[in-house]
Amino acid sequence: MSQAVPRRARSAEAKQQRERAILDAARSLGGERSVREVTLTDIAAAVGMHKSAMLRYFETREQIFLALTAEGWRDWSRDVRTRLGEVEDIGPGPVAAVLAETLVVRPFFCDLLAQAPLNLERNVSPDAAVAFKKAALAEVDAVRTVLCELLAITEEQAVDVVATATGMAGALHQMAAPGTGLRSLYETHPELSHALVDVGPRLVRVLSALLTGMRTGTRATATHPHM
Amino acid sequence: MSQAVPRRARSAEAKQQRERAILDAARSLGGERSVREVTLTDIAAAVGMHKSAMLRYFETREQIFLALTAEGWRDWSRDVRTRLGEVEDIGPGPVAAVLAETLVVRPFFCDLLAQAPLNLERNVSPDAAVAFKKAALAEVDAVRTVLCELLAITEEQAVDVVATATGMAGALHQMAAPGTGLRSLYETHPELSHALVDVGPRLVRVLSALLTGMRTGTRATATHPHM
Repeated sequence: MSQAVPRRARSAEAKQQRERAILDAARSLGGERSVREVTLTDIAAAVGMHKSAMLRYFETREQIFLALTAEGWRDWSRDVRTRLGEVEDIGPGPVAAVLAETLVVRPFFCDLLAQAPLNLERNVSPDAAVAFKKAALAEVDAVRTVLCELLAITEEQAVDVVATATGMAGALHQMAAPGTGLRSLYETHPELSHALVDVGPRLVRVLSALLTGMRTGTRATATHPHM
Repeated sequence: MSQAVPRRARSAEAKQQRERAILDAARSLGGERSVREVTLTDIAAAVGMHKSAMLRYFETREQIFLALTAEGWRDWSRDVRTRLGEVEDIGPGPVAAVLAETLVVRPFFCDLLAQAPLNLERNVSPDAAVAFKKAALAEVDAVRTVLCELLAITEEQAVDVVATATGMAGALHQMAAPGTGLRSLYETHPELSHALVDVGPRLVRVLSALLTGMRTGTRATATHPHM
C-alpha cells in the first residue's frame, strides 16, 4: 500500500511521456507532409507502438491532431501577444504584419486551422470536441483583449480580426498547397499563374485594410453618433 | 454507315444526361448532409448506377464534387455580378452585403469552397485539377472586373476581396457546422456560446471593413504619392 501512490505517479508520468511521444511524432510527420496525408499507422510506426496500444492514449488520429491544434493556438497566442506588446508604431499596418508573420512561420498550425473544423472536430468524442473548443476560445479571448487595448476597436471587431487572420491563414495555406503536386501543376501552367497564392503578402494586405476600415468605421460612428 | 452519326450523337447525348444525373444526385446529397459525408456509393445508389459504371463518367467522388464547385463558381459569379449591377448606393456596406448574401444563400457552395483546396483538388488527375482551376480563375477575374469598376480599387485589391469573401465564407461555414452534432454541442454548452458563428453578419462586417480600409488606403496613396 505504501508503494501504491508512487507507482501510480510513475504510471501517470509514463502515460504522459507516451502521449507526448505520440504528439511529437504526429507533429513531425504533419510538418513534413500535409496533415491529411498522415495516417494513424504512420504515427504508430514513427513512435514505435502498436496501433491498438496507441488507441489507449488517443481515440482517433483526429484527436491527436486536435490536441496539436490546441497546442498551436496556445503557442501562436503567446507569440502574437508578445510581439504585439513590442510593436513601436501601433497602427493597422504593423499590427497586421505581426498577425500575418506569426501565422506564416507556422505552416503546420495553418494546415491544422483549416483541418480542425472540416475534419478533426467531427471525428472525436463530444468531450474531446468541447475540450478543444474551450482551449481555442480561451486563446481567441486573450488575443482579442490585446487587440482591443492596442487599437481601440470593439470586442466584436477584435474577434472578427482573429477569425479573419486564422481563417484566411488556413484557407490561403491550403490554396497555396506548398510542397504538393498541385503546387507544381500551378507552377508549370502559365495560365494558372494566378493560382499561385503568396500567403504572407496577401494576409498582410487583407488584415491591414480590415483594421484600417474598422478604425475608420469606429471613428465615423464616434463622430456621428446618429449613423 | 448512314446511321453512324446520329447514333454517335445519341450516345454523346446519353453520356451527357448520365453525367448530369450523377452531378444532380451528388448535389442533392451534398445539400442534405455535408459534402464530407457523401460517398461514391451513396451517389451511385441515388442515381441507380453501379459504382464501377459511374467511374466511366468521373474518376473519383472528388471529381464529381470538383465539377460541382466549378458550376458553383459560375452560378455565384453570375448572381453576384447581376446584383452588383443593381446596387443603387455604391459603397463598402452595400457591396459587402451583396458579396455576403449571395454566398450565404449557397451553403452547398460554401461547403465546397472549403473542401476544394483541402480535399477535392488533391484527389483528381492533373488534367481535371487544371480544368477546375481555369474555370474558377475565370470567374474570379469576372467578379474582379466588376469590383474594380464599381469601387475604384486596384485589380490586386479586388482579387483580395474575392479571396476573402470566398475564403471566409468557406471557413465560417465549416466553423458554424450547421446541422451537425458539433453544432448541437455548441448550442447546449453555454461556455461554448462564442463557438456559435453567425456566418452572414460576420461576413458582412469583415467585407465592409475590408472595402472601407482599401478605399481609405487607395485615397491616402493617391493624395500623398510619396507614401
